[in-house]
Amino acid sequence: MDLKKLFIDTLVGQIRALDQFGTWANKSNEDLLLEKYIRSKEDLKNIPIIADIDEMQIKDIRLVYQAVALAFEKITGVMCSVVMEMSHEGFGRVVVFANKIVLCEKYFKDAHRFSFRSYEDLEKEGEKYLKNAQETYDKYKNI
Amino acid sequence: MDLKKLFIDTLVGQIRALDQFGTWANKSNEDLLLEKYIRSKEDLKNIPIIADIDEMQIKDIRLVYQAVALAFEKITGVMCSVVMEMSHEGFGRVVVFANKIVLCEKYFKDAHRFSFRSYEDLEKEGEKYLKNAQETYDKYKNI
Repeated sequence: MDLKKLFIDTLVGQIRALDQFGTWANKSNEDLLLEKYIRSKEDLKNIPIIADIDEMQIKDIRLVYQAVALAFEKITGVMCSVVMEMSHEGFGRVVVFANKIVLCEKYFKDAHRFSFRSYEDLEKEGEKYLKNAQETYDKYKNI
Repeated sequence: MDLKKLFIDTLVGQIRALDQFGTWANKSNEDLLLEKYIRSKEDLKNIPIIADIDEMQIKDIRLVYQAVALAFEKITGVMCSVVMEMSHEGFGRVVVFANKIVLCEKYFKDAHRFSFRSYEDLEKEGEKYLKNAQETYDKYKNI
């Protein structure tokens, strides 16, 4: 199965589902993801190290992990949950789990800078999350 | 090991550690827990079903699960993490996990009413959380 495509499709699906007013209707999938998640090294230089994170950005980060959970469900049929906690200063943690098994987990310390360097990086990261989730699940599932 | 005592002591320790201004210095441990966590059926009748939850209450709920995590660490030496997510309407979820294993997990739907009917109920619930956490951990830990 093409995990990269599955991840990207699921993520885009999640974002578009929240597009209540059609703001992004004319944007291509790639443009949408570029705008939300891709920051070059140059871009990052213009984002302060210490800054507050806004609700919108917190939701965008959550969507990435919701996409991991949902894509994992599509592959395995196993239901997952996402719990994310984030302070307004951008410290936080997210965990994706199925039953008693933690599939994916990440700690944030400057979440307002959360981004990927390129579209390919985002694809790869999604693929990695899904591969690791499957490996962990396969290891523990028969207990 | 007396899990009830361990849980209560850990919970009280967490609460007192946050007592920056000595507000609770003259309260006994039991009074402190009664005030924070015990609501009789009669009390609950006076708390609306639908209401907002304040930051203080969210912290108090978190402390219960932090106490589970910390008490589990004391027993096993294994480090745990707590991630809790709560909307201002009192919908939320908390998960306590160690490595890849979910030790304890709870979904809230009217968290502003979160409470135990009696001091003994609180003790018992703490004991149950710790017993279940140990059972789950023992089952999965050798993988």
